[in-house]
Amino acid sequence: MRHHSDLEKLKVLFPYIRKYQELASKHGIRDIFQDNGGKLLQILLILNMQGLGCREGNDCRDAEGYEYELKSVNILLTKGISTHHHLNPVILKKYRGVRAWYFSVYSGIELVEVWRVETRDLEQWFKAQERKLAESGRPDINNPKIPLALVRRVGTLVFESSDGKKESDPRRTGR
Amino acid sequence: MRHHSDLEKLKVLFPYIRKYQELASKHGIRDIFQDNGGKLLQILLILNMQGLGCREGNDCRDAEGYEYELKSVNILLTKGISTHHHLNPVILKKYRGVRAWYFSVYSGIELVEVWRVETRDLEQWFKAQERKLAESGRPDINNPKIPLALVRRVGTLVFESSDGKKESDPRRTGR
Repeated sequence: MRHHSDLEKLKVLFPYIRKYQELASKHGIRDIFQDNGGKLLQILLILNMQGLGCREGNDCRDAEGYEYELKSVNILLTKGISTHHHLNPVILKKYRGVRAWYFSVYSGIELVEVWRVETRDLEQWFKAQERKLAESGRPDINNPKIPLALVRRVGTLVFESSDGKKESDPRRTGR
Repeated sequence: MRHHSDLEKLKVLFPYIRKYQELASKHGIRDIFQDNGGKLLQILLILNMQGLGCREGNDCRDAEGYEYELKSVNILLTKGISTHHHLNPVILKKYRGVRAWYFSVYSGIELVEVWRVETRDLEQWFKAQERKLAESGRPDINNPKIPLALVRRVGTLVFESSDGKKESDPRRTGR
């Protein structure tokens, strides 16, 4: 009976889920339940307000045509940010070619912070991956993580949940 | 202004998204926006009603302790069902060790069909992967797909959306 009742609850909530998907589809996100689609919607809307046009998943460009890379992390699950399941020299070239990275920090499904990191400030991390690739002798690395601590050290906080920390948070003045 | 307005829409919908996540958390799904979590919730509730206890992501067991493998596919995006980003002999052993597979077929975020396939009926596919592994000389294969056509040919339709096809659909009488 408990599961039957939960299935009923799901049926009541699902029309709102459909509306959320419709909103996501409008912004190029075809499936909110995959690859953090439902989270990406929120960050796209926020970044668009900051003048970045984000469409079709992870591709963001500004008015001058510069590209941006988006990543997200759920701090309830991990403090390491996933990158690519088969990181190789081609992906690294793409990574180095964007103007900046935006890292969205979630607690579960709640957006807590957004950090902007200039691509040059990830150069040490890129070099470390190249060393790992060379040493392994394999053509790619399985999803090396970017530590959230690195992002918070070199990045600029561009968005913070209003439920979150106060304006006086010292990290706001970093960089 | 358009994006500001969409952000407002998101804020109105988000309380329902939170409730959906709460329901999902109750069933061991920590993030509805990753790995098809929000879809998995629906299929878990349906399978639980059919006597399978499903908890903690993909692990389903019946009352006798037999395990089941769950997979899903969005037919708007692909007709091939993702398996594993690094399929290797260890994963193949796990795949062969379950009693049956359940394949959920989605159109976008809408559940359309659920198929049950007995593990022995995937044996040809398992063998094909072993051949690919041997020929490649690599330790794993990157996400080989199970064709939906295969699932529909050898499987049994155990759930169909009430918006979907009629009871008289000839596939219902298959097997």
